Amino acid sequence: MDGRRNFLKTAFATCSLLAGSKLLTACTPIKKVATDEETFETFATPDALKGMPIKATFLDEISWDIPHQNWGTKEWDQDFKAMKKMGINTVVLIRAGLGKWIASPFQCLLGKEDVYYPPVDLVEMFLTLADKYNMAFYFGMYDSGKYWQEGLFQKEIDLNMALIDEVWKKYGHHKSFQGWYLSQEISRRTKNMSKIYAEVGKHAKAVSGNLSTMVSPYIHGVKTDQVMAGDKALSVKEHEEEWDEILNNVNGAVDIMAFQDGQVDYHELYDYLVINKKLADKYNMKCWTNIESFDRDMPIRFLPIKWEKLLLKLDAARRAGMENAITFEFSHFMSPNSAYLQAGHLYERYCEHFIL
Amino acid sequence: MDGRRNFLKTAFATCSLLAGSKLLTACTPIKKVATDEETFETFATPDALKGMPIKATFLDEISWDIPHQNWGTKEWDQDFKAMKKMGINTVVLIRAGLGKWIASPFQCLLGKEDVYYPPVDLVEMFLTLADKYNMAFYFGMYDSGKYWQEGLFQKEIDLNMALIDEVWKKYGHHKSFQGWYLSQEISRRTKNMSKIYAEVGKHAKAVSGNLSTMVSPYIHGVKTDQVMAGDKALSVKEHEEEWDEILNNVNGAVDIMAFQDGQVDYHELYDYLVINKKLADKYNMKCWTNIESFDRDMPIRFLPIKWEKLLLKLDAARRAGMENAITFEFSHFMSPNSAYLQAGHLYERYCEHFIL
Amino acid sequence: MDGRRNFLKTAFATCSLLAGSKLLTACTPIKKVATDEETFETFATPDALKGMPIKATFLDEISWDIPHQNWGTKEWDQDFKAMKKMGINTVVLIRAGLGKWIASPFQCLLGKEDVYYPPVDLVEMFLTLADKYNMAFYFGMYDSGKYWQEGLFQKEIDLNMALIDEVWKKYGHHKSFQGWYLSQEISRRTKNMSKIYAEVGKHAKAVSGNLSTMVSPYIHGVKTDQVMAGDKALSVKEHEEEWDEILNNVNGAVDIMAFQDGQVDYHELYDYLVINKKLADKYNMKCWTNIESFDRDMPIRFLPIKWEKLLLKLDAARRAGMENAITFEFSHFMSPNSAYLQAGHLYERYCEHFIL
Repeated sequence: MDGRRNFLKTAFATCSLLAGSKLLTACTPIKKVATDEETFETFATPDALKGMPIKATFLDEISWDIPHQNWGTKEWDQDFKAMKKMGINTVVLIRAGLGKWIASPFQCLLGKEDVYYPPVDLVEMFLTLADKYNMAFYFGMYDSGKYWQEGLFQKEIDLNMALIDEVWKKYGHHKSFQGWYLSQEISRRTKNMSKIYAEVGKHAKAVSGNLSTMVSPYIHGVKTDQVMAGDKALSVKEHEEEWDEILNNVNGAVDIMAFQDGQVDYHELYDYLVINKKLADKYNMKCWTNIESFDRDMPIRFLPIKWEKLLLKLDAARRAGMENAITFEFSHFMSPNSAYLQAGHLYERYCEHFIL
Repeated sequence: MDGRRNFLKTAFATCSLLAGSKLLTACTPIKKVATDEETFETFATPDALKGMPIKATFLDEISWDIPHQNWGTKEWDQDFKAMKKMGINTVVLIRAGLGKWIASPFQCLLGKEDVYYPPVDLVEMFLTLADKYNMAFYFGMYDSGKYWQEGLFQKEIDLNMALIDEVWKKYGHHKSFQGWYLSQEISRRTKNMSKIYAEVGKHAKAVSGNLSTMVSPYIHGVKTDQVMAGDKALSVKEHEEEWDEILNNVNGAVDIMAFQDGQVDYHELYDYLVINKKLADKYNMKCWTNIESFDRDMPIRFLPIKWEKLLLKLDAARRAGMENAITFEFSHFMSPNSAYLQAGHLYERYCEHFIL
Repeated sequence: MDGRRNFLKTAFATCSLLAGSKLLTACTPIKKVATDEETFETFATPDALKGMPIKATFLDEISWDIPHQNWGTKEWDQDFKAMKKMGINTVVLIRAGLGKWIASPFQCLLGKEDVYYPPVDLVEMFLTLADKYNMAFYFGMYDSGKYWQEGLFQKEIDLNMALIDEVWKKYGHHKSFQGWYLSQEISRRTKNMSKIYAEVGKHAKAVSGNLSTMVSPYIHGVKTDQVMAGDKALSVKEHEEEWDEILNNVNGAVDIMAFQDGQVDYHELYDYLVINKKLADKYNMKCWTNIESFDRDMPIRFLPIKWEKLLLKLDAARRAGMENAITFEFSHFMSPNSAYLQAGHLYERYCEHFIL
């Protein structure tokens, strides 16, 4: 109890001490958080950034570079509950498979491709949980990891066409099945991949009664592996020109464009987002931001991002008029259930900021 | 309670929905796990792999590349309890020392080599715990880290001869002291080291009334540092020829051969394991698999492996007729007590699968 | 209860078993730790090193390479409590800012430099907590990250001169404000930076009624990035000569010299520490050791250090006559609240050893 009185006393003392300074024109109300035993001042600064809320997350179970948490249904159930509490209403399966690893026993892949038989039907599990928590689920496509080269595109398209048919027939009855995610992450170097987007996206919409389709490309910026290895980053103007061409190719096949926000530096982000919004408007797409909740600036690749960095990016997204924010991804990097305990504290900071 | 009813309802619905499909010829029983409050369906797939159980683990306290957990006796006691619950009956000290670091105040090393005086007698502690939990303990040899070059082998042999004498005299009274581990991890590049195996192994057996000796070499495969740096991986046939020669050198000195299973790709593993079994049979050895429970495929080197990958490897081992499985290693990568919380979830998935 | 009896029995058995051996001249008392339910022997070795206690820690919130924990005031309050319990009486803000990131809304930086507006006033928070827990707080300077080159030094000096004035005016009333930390980490390669030390240090002392100033340089040893990249490590003699010159340059501006202890190998440390003490004595400084509590020897850069290594370094520091030990840093690497759970166990080993 002594602790609490100390803090309150300090809070008021600070307030009167600074009352005449340039820093505060009026006495800023002191933000506080309560625990069972004590009340703590947050020491929030008077002009702290606002940001915009995150309403969606990827589900990264068939992972490229993020170690697995080995959760079963019980743990996933708890995590969906935590998402919901934070305001998340949409979950997006990052991909149905990558190379030999697949999320569910898809017959069309087990028969044709050299894939491992999976122990769990993740798609059924995620849909069941999304139904339970009243969320929207987007199904991410299969990424062969090998048919990206010119001349092999058609194979990647054919596999996904068959997969869409099988998946919609088997899982389409779930009320939460509300969209498709075109999982191939393209950039300027792989722009011919946009043909995959177009064909696959149109087919997915056609079989499912026009459900929404999403893409999440990345900017060829200073934090891409290519640029870190010596390549030149794309200027804002070059970015606009290249993507104008790419988006023209996929017109009518993509409803939501959610650029990844981590490949450019924090102070550069706003300018790129403004262009993304302009392009989305031109092609009649919704413009989301894919806000990365992991930290690209540390030698451990990757742990949860610092709250200050997340807030900076959420504020740039707000100012640039993004229509929604999806994070990559909640369960490792923002969840109170994450094996990375920094994630749970990021969740607390986020909830504290948005007063959840 | 609502949650549970939802899940059960979904489970039966799924069952009847699919009853006529090719996917299920009969209605597969739904696997469930119970918690205090709810029952959760596991969403196990109908043809999920079986695998074989893990009955042994290394103890990696004098570590090469795995950060320490800083456990005292209390934490180790809890961990032995968790091992026992999972079915582990054998613990193997990975090494008595590595370079300047040693596991216990061995007089024969403190006197002759430039080693640090250790704060804890780990060998006494591990033997005491193995006694308590009715496990077998294997003592791993000292690895100087510097006498591996041609011409210096004899020094490594002499040090370990003296160590065996001292250790058997001091710790041999423990009922759990049941074997020796020849800790030098050899591969084709270091096959002359097999001389160490032979001499040291024979001496250890001689002083201890013929206790078992174990080795755990590695395959010169695609995930070794050497091959990742440009060297050519060994084919299955080359692997067989080279190891036929090496095993001939150590005939009579080694009772258990437990190849590490992480240096080859998942789909290659079975073929190598079949050869290992054939070779073990030829030289009258027991053939175990050393199943790595850490993930070699991620940028963080290393965190716990994905359950699906572990199960794939355990199933390849089962099909190839391995006689036992030892993991590297329980306490960091599979334990509910691990600092890596993914490990605790791997433990849960393992126990769930083997219905423990 | 059975467990406890077992352990005690073993303890006495071991004692009588060894009573006549060379290992123990008298029967060493068995060290034990108690939990709620059981008593555990520690298996401490008879001649275990002593070490010296750690009384200070850095606060690494504006971090260079350590991922953030995303703590709020509540979590920091708990952490100061844990520090206090371990005997820490001094906290040192590692830096007021680094490049665009700053710890508090410093007007002199927000106006002139391209910095981000911070969400929290960390300086006010840390001072409030240091007041509450009766600790001393040292304020670390701003590091621009870009004015280190010859010819730009004056800019770094000017920024810090203005910062000192602002900070002392705004925060100087706190009873815990008791010193300054000159945060630029220099070594032989950057020795011209000592001009910054001298000018900034003198100004800080002048405005604050001669509060203490601290530096924490590093030895150009085998574990620096430079030497690992091919550069030659500095011998003990070269180290002495170069630092004699540097310290001569900063005479009168620095009160405490706390060399980082992690860039040399464990067996080399003592010799360097002896020289550091000699140099500190010559220039009338206090000689502390900056004991790194993270592990530089592992592929994950960085997790908490092994207790044995920490103890080795604390013992070298004790023998070399260090006057105090500050760690980099408590909250990530030694704290029971750390996201790295190995840190909590390091805390337990430390407290057990020093019987806290």
